[in-house]
Amino acid sequence: MFIGAQLSLYPMASDFVGVITHALGELDPYRDALRIETDDISTLMVGAPGPLFDAIRDLFAAAARGPDHVALHATLSRGCPGEPDEPSCRCETLTVAQDQPLAVRSADALAAVADAPLSGVEIDVQFSLYVMGADRHMDEIYGCIDFLKQSGVFLRSKNFCTRLRGDAGPVVEAVRQAFLRFGPAEGHVTIDLTASANSPSPR
Amino acid sequence: MFIGAQLSLYPMASDFVGVITHALGELDPYRDALRIETDDISTLMVGAPGPLFDAIRDLFAAAARGPDHVALHATLSRGCPGEPDEPSCRCETLTVAQDQPLAVRSADALAAVADAPLSGVEIDVQFSLYVMGADRHMDEIYGCIDFLKQSGVFLRSKNFCTRLRGDAGPVVEAVRQAFLRFGPAEGHVTIDLTASANSPSPR
Repeated sequence: MFIGAQLSLYPMASDFVGVITHALGELDPYRDALRIETDDISTLMVGAPGPLFDAIRDLFAAAARGPDHVALHATLSRGCPGEPDEPSCRCETLTVAQDQPLAVRSADALAAVADAPLSGVEIDVQFSLYVMGADRHMDEIYGCIDFLKQSGVFLRSKNFCTRLRGDAGPVVEAVRQAFLRFGPAEGHVTIDLTASANSPSPR
Repeated sequence: MFIGAQLSLYPMASDFVGVITHALGELDPYRDALRIETDDISTLMVGAPGPLFDAIRDLFAAAARGPDHVALHATLSRGCPGEPDEPSCRCETLTVAQDQPLAVRSADALAAVADAPLSGVEIDVQFSLYVMGADRHMDEIYGCIDFLKQSGVFLRSKNFCTRLRGDAGPVVEAVRQAFLRFGPAEGHVTIDLTASANSPSPR
């Protein structure tokens, strides 16, 4: 299986280079576990969901601690048939989830969110989960939305996506659980994720 | 069918509110054809692919004409089974494409890109096409990538997405054609789109 993300950080500040460079320091602890490559649009991160989502959380939390309005976008993918097998992406949670009914996967996802450490930074997120190559893809998507509604970080449903709000720890954990426990374990599952902090717009 | 986008514009400038407000003026010609609603993370636009993609193109081209580094993200969706039928989204191209083999759809897509008017603004784009509820979803995705490679605005393949570069007119037309002519006409198809202009990073 191949797992990873294309990630972009957008500081709404004229010193955006400084804000990005500062936040990128948060990736240092993950450079052994993840393959990281940057171009002018996004940063590719390839690796297991443990370090992958931890790195996204720490990067965005660092940027959100500053005074500037910042946004982040990530295109997350697992199991794309067009990508090679990558041993560093192996994930026990995916293997375990494969044989479990939806109700058990939801309960495990809720427990993981409840256990997530707090970061002390409040963020807003919206994301879409896409399940491909499956006839009944909406069953998994509706199951995921039900989990999110009980997660403690659900804000509201929107067209095409779900809004979360809360501490970056449980919020990013909820996205990781959606990515891991919904859609077939061996299937092609993607997420389109947007995070925002310090927006001057009324929420 | 329900068709639309959640759109966010990110000016990397301390006067980001001014840049966004100026660019939003470009949506005025489309306000009759599209339902437009904004919150603190994104702007929902619902309507037919004609005005929908024209509005995205004009909004981003206006922002890209300024001196600032700007990025745009759009979550595009058609045919989501969870959304209501919306008559304003009706699209002749989708109806015609339904019965055509892949080769004919690709040829029509290439003709549309060749006919696209130029905007005079150079942009970079990367996007992913997702086809759901279909057993052979990768056939459509590979067919789309083949079309993009011949489109004249293809830059390169990346993990999880395809890079385009060129004038905003044909580039956005290529994304619209990908959205309309690949994946079943009545199916659930989404796009995760990022656009960028005036980046200081080496390309």
